[in-house]
Amino acid sequence: MIDIEEIGLKAKNASVELQKVSTKKKNAALLAMATALEKNTARIIVENSLDMKDAGDNGVAPAMLDRLKLTEERIRAMADGLRNVAQLSDPIGEVIRGWVNEDELQISQIRVPLGVIGMIFEARPNVTVDASGLTFKSGNAVILRGGKEAIRSNIVLADVLREALEENKLPVDAIQMIDDPSHEGVNQMMHLNQYIDVLIPRGGAKFIQMVVQNSTVPVIETGAGNCHVYVDELADLKKALPIIINAKTQRPSVCNAMEKLVVHSAVAKELLPQLKEALEPFNVDLRGDEATKAILPDIKLATEEDWGTEYNDYIMAIKIVDSVDEAIAHINKYNTKHSEAIITEDYTASQKFTNEIDAAVVYVNASTRFTDGFKFGFGAEIGISTQKLHARGPMGLNELTSTKYVIRGNGQIRES
Amino acid sequence: MIDIEEIGLKAKNASVELQKVSTKKKNAALLAMATALEKNTARIIVENSLDMKDAGDNGVAPAMLDRLKLTEERIRAMADGLRNVAQLSDPIGEVIRGWVNEDELQISQIRVPLGVIGMIFEARPNVTVDASGLTFKSGNAVILRGGKEAIRSNIVLADVLREALEENKLPVDAIQMIDDPSHEGVNQMMHLNQYIDVLIPRGGAKFIQMVVQNSTVPVIETGAGNCHVYVDELADLKKALPIIINAKTQRPSVCNAMEKLVVHSAVAKELLPQLKEALEPFNVDLRGDEATKAILPDIKLATEEDWGTEYNDYIMAIKIVDSVDEAIAHINKYNTKHSEAIITEDYTASQKFTNEIDAAVVYVNASTRFTDGFKFGFGAEIGISTQKLHARGPMGLNELTSTKYVIRGNGQIRES
Repeated sequence: MIDIEEIGLKAKNASVELQKVSTKKKNAALLAMATALEKNTARIIVENSLDMKDAGDNGVAPAMLDRLKLTEERIRAMADGLRNVAQLSDPIGEVIRGWVNEDELQISQIRVPLGVIGMIFEARPNVTVDASGLTFKSGNAVILRGGKEAIRSNIVLADVLREALEENKLPVDAIQMIDDPSHEGVNQMMHLNQYIDVLIPRGGAKFIQMVVQNSTVPVIETGAGNCHVYVDELADLKKALPIIINAKTQRPSVCNAMEKLVVHSAVAKELLPQLKEALEPFNVDLRGDEATKAILPDIKLATEEDWGTEYNDYIMAIKIVDSVDEAIAHINKYNTKHSEAIITEDYTASQKFTNEIDAAVVYVNASTRFTDGFKFGFGAEIGISTQKLHARGPMGLNELTSTKYVIRGNGQIRES
Repeated sequence: MIDIEEIGLKAKNASVELQKVSTKKKNAALLAMATALEKNTARIIVENSLDMKDAGDNGVAPAMLDRLKLTEERIRAMADGLRNVAQLSDPIGEVIRGWVNEDELQISQIRVPLGVIGMIFEARPNVTVDASGLTFKSGNAVILRGGKEAIRSNIVLADVLREALEENKLPVDAIQMIDDPSHEGVNQMMHLNQYIDVLIPRGGAKFIQMVVQNSTVPVIETGAGNCHVYVDELADLKKALPIIINAKTQRPSVCNAMEKLVVHSAVAKELLPQLKEALEPFNVDLRGDEATKAILPDIKLATEEDWGTEYNDYIMAIKIVDSVDEAIAHINKYNTKHSEAIITEDYTASQKFTNEIDAAVVYVNASTRFTDGFKFGFGAEIGISTQKLHARGPMGLNELTSTKYVIRGNGQIRES
């Protein structure tokens, strides 16, 4: 049984201390955390192997086992991630805008930490390190709660980071890991409004929806990506084919991978057979509507459920439409507001698509796989927001901040 | 019994249409709404007088009755508010930032509407018009749910606005008023995640907390203001006295009014007797800690409850401290993160206060009463956010928007 109130209070107090820590000290601590991870490689691998053994005994799937596994190389990659975060510019203190109002008050809007961030995540233990690095650099305390399969790995990783904080005389409770693997910890975090400023769940779509539906703490929805590529009537098929193949097959398990192809009827007959052939080496399970099946008779008929499903796998469903408007309507009906692309040489169609598609990121003639904080040039990423409040799209350090207005006067009072 | 799903769907559809409406058309519609309000003055006053009669019969307090009452002058003021919103620049379409990444993708972050905004408010029917104007201008559909005392007034106001939308061939469901005065409507809105992008409650602190604690739709917390003025050891008392009097008495019922005075012990003996005398014409009920009572023996002893209470009335509690650190700790413990002021001529104290106070707005040598979208120069205000996510401080048109990334490429695919 965890005392969530105490964890919350400790995090809150640590966040107050953290706000006063200089960028220089924060960066030194991040480098110390990186070194500590590498020095403690053996200790981390011992704990991780216990998690791996339990997971194996419990029949966890091989793909999941691979995500759970920590090696010397993976630990070094986590450490390098922290070193990278140390090099990013500190968002805290940035003056976002400033002006003098009619009353001659000097108004500045300044970037400040959010305070306490709750991260609830599944499987991969590297989230412990990545999230700690980003929340720490942006001046926030973090309360982490990982999946039960990785509990020993998560605890040892958090312990190593906390030890580095302590050695650097910084508040250790800036990083806390909930060590209770039961669901109760998640439940308690979702209602700790007094101490947690925002909750960021990372994991499958069902898990994230559970958090959204039950949390009274503000949530940033991340991740679910039922992404579409629409090949327009005036598409350059020499661009379309590589983009579809890349978006579908380069890494199908991630949220910015393409799940659905929408094709204008004028190019379907030319495109689809070439596409089918090009996808054969990847063993992609193709499904399509009736019109698609008229061109590719061997594939499965797509069901209503297909259109709304994020496969995260080598599966793709195809729909044929007669206009860009029909494509937009279909995509806006079924997408998860993540990333959508149009392939076209038609200027007006490209404008219509970018204006009317409701998604975090809308592409013209590029792969949806670029929706990523690193590819955007943010230097880091804590997730991809698919909601409209606070942050939308890849979230870097700036998205982990709030603002405060500082107003300097000389005795002004309000007359009316 | 209302069909909230149908209301939500209508709002969603209207919001999709609204995104395509030009600034010119939106402004013309706002001017038409203003004219319609004035033309329908008699009709509005008839409905309002029925609300007033019921409220009087039900023993509603005179202050509340005054807030409920609509007159020709007040209707004209609402119309002028809409004309003012028509003159503000349209936030939609603004390119907030843009760059070219390493893959030569042209990335733009563009301001877009949030979608559907839910407003739940108490008493004053002018919120119907003010909120409709701001949400409409920023391209959002709004679902309104006012207090039951003002139900007829709210319905007729929304009807008049909707008629103006219809005459301008714009989607009438951009503005919808829930006409069921039961609490069920509020309950349903708090769980309409499928259609409502954000809920903004306006009203008393208890009401807002009820919404925060129960809503699964994202909420922007507004309004609660337990604001402090701290008079430092090196304050110029010629600035301090007018600021305290202004912050406390100019309009004590509003959220940016001062509720608590914190005074450095070095100046308390000089300041407090002068202050007591200056506040006498306003009949302010003064309360204080033991140290304050040693100087002003006639006043009441403040209780622990006082420190956390927003009076919204001619009441003020006084605490004496021995340092700026003690003042900051007291304020951060009891404030509602709204507006806090320091009065000082000491540069270092001013820096410490602005850096360490956790609030939406922190002042040096000015009245807390300036926390207001109009005074900030935003030209409008839908409320004052006291939370850290999405928006903090006065919310104008920009705070009613989200963003979308538009990325233009020439066939880029992701290599790694």
